[in-house]
Amino acid sequence: MDKIQLKTRSKTEFVDITSEINQIVQKRVIKEGICHVYVPHTTAAITINENADPSVKKDIVNELNKIVPWNDSYTHGEGNAAAHIKSTIVGSSASIPISDGKLTLGTWQGIYFCEFDGPRHREAFVQIIKSE
Amino acid sequence: MDKIQLKTRSKTEFVDITSEINQIVQKRVIKEGICHVYVPHTTAAITINENADPSVKKDIVNELNKIVPWNDSYTHGEGNAAAHIKSTIVGSSASIPISDGKLTLGTWQGIYFCEFDGPRHREAFVQIIKSE
Amino acid sequence: MDKIQLKTRSKTEFVDITSEINQIVQKRVIKEGICHVYVPHTTAAITINENADPSVKKDIVNELNKIVPWNDSYTHGEGNAAAHIKSTIVGSSASIPISDGKLTLGTWQGIYFCEFDGPRHREAFVQIIKSE
Repeated sequence: MDKIQLKTRSKTEFVDITSEINQIVQKRVIKEGICHVYVPHTTAAITINENADPSVKKDIVNELNKIVPWNDSYTHGEGNAAAHIKSTIVGSSASIPISDGKLTLGTWQGIYFCEFDGPRHREAFVQIIKSE
Repeated sequence: MDKIQLKTRSKTEFVDITSEINQIVQKRVIKEGICHVYVPHTTAAITINENADPSVKKDIVNELNKIVPWNDSYTHGEGNAAAHIKSTIVGSSASIPISDGKLTLGTWQGIYFCEFDGPRHREAFVQIIKSE
Repeated sequence: MDKIQLKTRSKTEFVDITSEINQIVQKRVIKEGICHVYVPHTTAAITINENADPSVKKDIVNELNKIVPWNDSYTHGEGNAAAHIKSTIVGSSASIPISDGKLTLGTWQGIYFCEFDGPRHREAFVQIIKSE
């Protein structure tokens, strides 16, 4: 298993980790399989979305903050209940097929680490699985 | 890796691709494993949900459109920010266990390609992974 | 493939199944890989979230019930459309990396079976995949 270390800078932030994942995939000599990217945190997530226009990232972050408001009579004492809820909605991992030795991301797809309670030091775990 | 081609017909639409996935699984002679279904698009998603009463599909589509309204002061220029957000909420892939050579879908489960910005020509990628 | 049987007790409820999954992982002698946990139900889901303060679980359940209200002019006749929608939002499976023979859950992470239309007898399927 490979690990990616990162440092987020804002409360809510999407960090593009596509090139780090690509490097890990290239190190392994696997022709067909899947690449599994996982966050070991309960106030973060992984998503795949547009890598071209940065306004998409901003719109997703803003809308998630609207759907799950930071203050909403939560009972969790640490004040970050909204971050936990967004983690469950977006999901703690993503899997991308590997074919002909490369990630099969679509033209406009990038892999994002989603910070919902930053800034913090964070990790993502990457496991490469071979197809038969 | 196998590819499924499809043509969606509406702005928002759930297309049942269970039989196409079943055919791909049957071609491979794998007893135990998982089947990973992935969309290489940023305004589409994959979900697993009820295959019996079509009203469920309609209710999911309508409620997602309510939770993420098509117009909501987004900044993304192409006018389809809501589709990107729904893609992140629903997720760009699904994995289903294979056991005794077959998908272990529950009695009422079907696999759906979720179109959030159609109509378009679309693809789904299918990767079969063997368990030990 | 392994199966976990459980009995939920409330309409909406998150049941911690981490120790059952850990037992399955320990039975197999796999050093590196992923563990895939799947629900064969259309009104349930799997999520990974905080295992320490039970108020987090409560906040997630309450907020999901607010985002997807139980009554909202749905058309599905069985009266559980909201449960189907929450299943699609949270997702029918989760995958966790296995490294050095163990699940790589973060310190505060537990694996939850999410019941959205209980109480019922339910199942979760567990498939272990070896990394190369």
